[in-house]
Amino acid sequence: MEPGPPGGSRPAERGPCLSSPPGADEAASASPLSAAGAEPGRRPLAVAAVLPAGGSGERMGVPTPKQFCPVLERPLISYTLRALERVCWIKDIVVAVTGENIEAMNSIIQKYQHKRISVVEAGVTRHRSIFNGLKALAEDQPDSKLCKPEVVIIHDAVRPFVEEDVLLKVVIAAKEHGAAGAIRPLVSTVISPSADGCLDHSLERARHRASEMPQAFLFDVIYEAYQQCSDYDLEFGTECLQLALKYCHTKAKLVEGSPDLWKVTYKRDLYAAESIIKERISQEICVVMDSKEGEEHIGRILEEVLKSELNHVKVTSGALCHAGGDLQQIILEQCYNFVCVNVMTSDFQETHKLLSILEENNLSILYPVVVVSVHFFDVKLVPLSQKMENLMWIRGFAKEVRKRNILLHGLLICYPQDEQKLQESLRQAAIIIAALIKERNSGLVGQLLVA
Amino acid sequence: MEPGPPGGSRPAERGPCLSSPPGADEAASASPLSAAGAEPGRRPLAVAAVLPAGGSGERMGVPTPKQFCPVLERPLISYTLRALERVCWIKDIVVAVTGENIEAMNSIIQKYQHKRISVVEAGVTRHRSIFNGLKALAEDQPDSKLCKPEVVIIHDAVRPFVEEDVLLKVVIAAKEHGAAGAIRPLVSTVISPSADGCLDHSLERARHRASEMPQAFLFDVIYEAYQQCSDYDLEFGTECLQLALKYCHTKAKLVEGSPDLWKVTYKRDLYAAESIIKERISQEICVVMDSKEGEEHIGRILEEVLKSELNHVKVTSGALCHAGGDLQQIILEQCYNFVCVNVMTSDFQETHKLLSILEENNLSILYPVVVVSVHFFDVKLVPLSQKMENLMWIRGFAKEVRKRNILLHGLLICYPQDEQKLQESLRQAAIIIAALIKERNSGLVGQLLVA
Repeated sequence: MEPGPPGGSRPAERGPCLSSPPGADEAASASPLSAAGAEPGRRPLAVAAVLPAGGSGERMGVPTPKQFCPVLERPLISYTLRALERVCWIKDIVVAVTGENIEAMNSIIQKYQHKRISVVEAGVTRHRSIFNGLKALAEDQPDSKLCKPEVVIIHDAVRPFVEEDVLLKVVIAAKEHGAAGAIRPLVSTVISPSADGCLDHSLERARHRASEMPQAFLFDVIYEAYQQCSDYDLEFGTECLQLALKYCHTKAKLVEGSPDLWKVTYKRDLYAAESIIKERISQEICVVMDSKEGEEHIGRILEEVLKSELNHVKVTSGALCHAGGDLQQIILEQCYNFVCVNVMTSDFQETHKLLSILEENNLSILYPVVVVSVHFFDVKLVPLSQKMENLMWIRGFAKEVRKRNILLHGLLICYPQDEQKLQESLRQAAIIIAALIKERNSGLVGQLLVA
Repeated sequence: MEPGPPGGSRPAERGPCLSSPPGADEAASASPLSAAGAEPGRRPLAVAAVLPAGGSGERMGVPTPKQFCPVLERPLISYTLRALERVCWIKDIVVAVTGENIEAMNSIIQKYQHKRISVVEAGVTRHRSIFNGLKALAEDQPDSKLCKPEVVIIHDAVRPFVEEDVLLKVVIAAKEHGAAGAIRPLVSTVISPSADGCLDHSLERARHRASEMPQAFLFDVIYEAYQQCSDYDLEFGTECLQLALKYCHTKAKLVEGSPDLWKVTYKRDLYAAESIIKERISQEICVVMDSKEGEEHIGRILEEVLKSELNHVKVTSGALCHAGGDLQQIILEQCYNFVCVNVMTSDFQETHKLLSILEENNLSILYPVVVVSVHFFDVKLVPLSQKMENLMWIRGFAKEVRKRNILLHGLLICYPQDEQKLQESLRQAAIIIAALIKERNSGLVGQLLVA
């Protein structure tokens, strides 16, 4: 099985506007949305998003509502917020959470440095929560501080893998049709039971679709629909597109979405989300060395072995000299895995320097960063035990950086004169490095592994 | 979030008949199915199962059909076969695979020691594969070697977590109604698109259900339905219950299933399946020591710390003396995790003995078994480096037992006189043991970890 991530590469986390489609930049005229129905010279389409997050997660079978369940120690909803906020043309994101979770939500926003988020109180049903979110964006509400958008996206807090392209598609379609929503083929046949619990009829699978999120609406359409709809709709309805149809006669455009849009519903979905995120942040390894000069540098040799042994992983390298210029670039491009080659005999200067750079760049705010501090030894020159004794400093140090979400491990690579044995050691090192990066288990930090 | 397994504890793997519901045993009269409509004194209901496994897995986005994708290095279909064959009252299991996969299927059956399985060639569609499976069970086929069952279960190869209780429910309901199938609530709203790709209407979620597997039928009903149904049905139909309704006027009884019945469809489902299986086989840890006598035994102290630190994990203990009687029992009860306490000063006799017992019992055929070889040292008496040097044998040894699906790791626990520091070491050991068991990553075998 190919380990490539489903439907995308590493998460694009650089900054809100760098993830816009090619050709788009922050200038209004070049925004992908200036072409989305707005006339030339006019301001670009104003877009906001509403995220109902008031659910109790009872289907998950756990006491924590699923949107607050930790994935790699970070609440699921933070991934979804990040997916929306990195899209620069979404101006405001309104999250509706229950009263008891407002404080927790504000802490999440602060801890993970989310931007452009407003928190409102959820209602007792999903529709009521969405309605509360819309009110926060409406002009007719007395305490509204946000600007009314032309188009509003409605998304779920528990669909963290939404990509910019589908957001753009539903927004453009909503501008044209008044409403739009993502759909997916049905996985199971849908049936209609009779009153006695027997099969009445089954629906033809090809003629039906699962309605997923995101959806988008002209703000005036969906706001009017919510204002007009009955209490029954607000209590028992499940489908926003249906409200737009019923109360505003707006037929939503349906947009094919990717499998990544699925909703985290059961505990197995949390497992799947964690595996997908781990896989996405494990797509690149940077081999860090004091200087990349010289083909014979042991770091270069390790880099080559990693390239040949770890298929499907991009292996890059960065030098600590020149004030770490290329390393800065690699960090900016969201690499979360570093193999730091130490060549100073009795020191770990390189690893220290790398850790300082990582901390300065705040790389580990969103994801745990794996650092493998590599040390070579020739068993004929220094006994392994002495080398290990020298490196026991790593345990205390790893404990320290763990607090800042950096997972530090030591790796001793046997460096024999025999070329064949050296290759064997390096291959073994590649396997260990791959295991540490894949699992990202904090229980193993500070260990000194031997290849 | 609670780490308890979704919908069940460890997989019941002991033997085909031990997993029958309480009160059932191998004697025909006590079979759960003797009460399922069969008259007293008559033979119990004859049940077989058909497993269509001819799919190409195109939705998965990987070249291997999903039913053959490895989960913990074992093909997914093997888990499903195990789930069926451990139910003793299913007499025959017919698997339909494409011609090119028949050899691979036979190898899987041999390698994982599956019983009561017959392999037939799949058709080009799911319905044709099921039909081929039914023909292998019919009396009217010239080369049939199997007995015609009264009730036949139809299940998917990619639903590995089916439990005996739902199989029993659909079989009993099929005996009474002629047909029965498992259903689940819908996760997404289902909509019907119009020809122009817009929303025509949405279906009321509460009035519809997803049709899942397993399903069961009176053999004569479903076989007749397949014999009578049109080529169009065989090519484009998706629902067996619908065939029974359409051609035999049999209204299927619908049975609520658990979330575990979900179908492995996308790559994320494989991730979820792997996490669920890992969690299920990580529910119990056995601390193995030479003798359990004496409250002061260091193994007993470690056992107590594991109990208090690792909530949600059952910690048991077994002694290597008395020919390992209680250990045999723990192995029989499917414990896949062993922490072996070595107290002999310069030897690893206990670990050797444990590994021999595990190999004799063939415990690692279905799941990788984790063994942590624990050694204590007092840093004041022996330098850590010397202790590590002494234990480097573990690397070669781990490589050897890895071939037999046993993942061996070494763990050195610092044993200071200071009671508080000792507790700290033991807590650290518990964290490391939990990490090794959770990840079950073969890339880290043979490593010597330090707590």
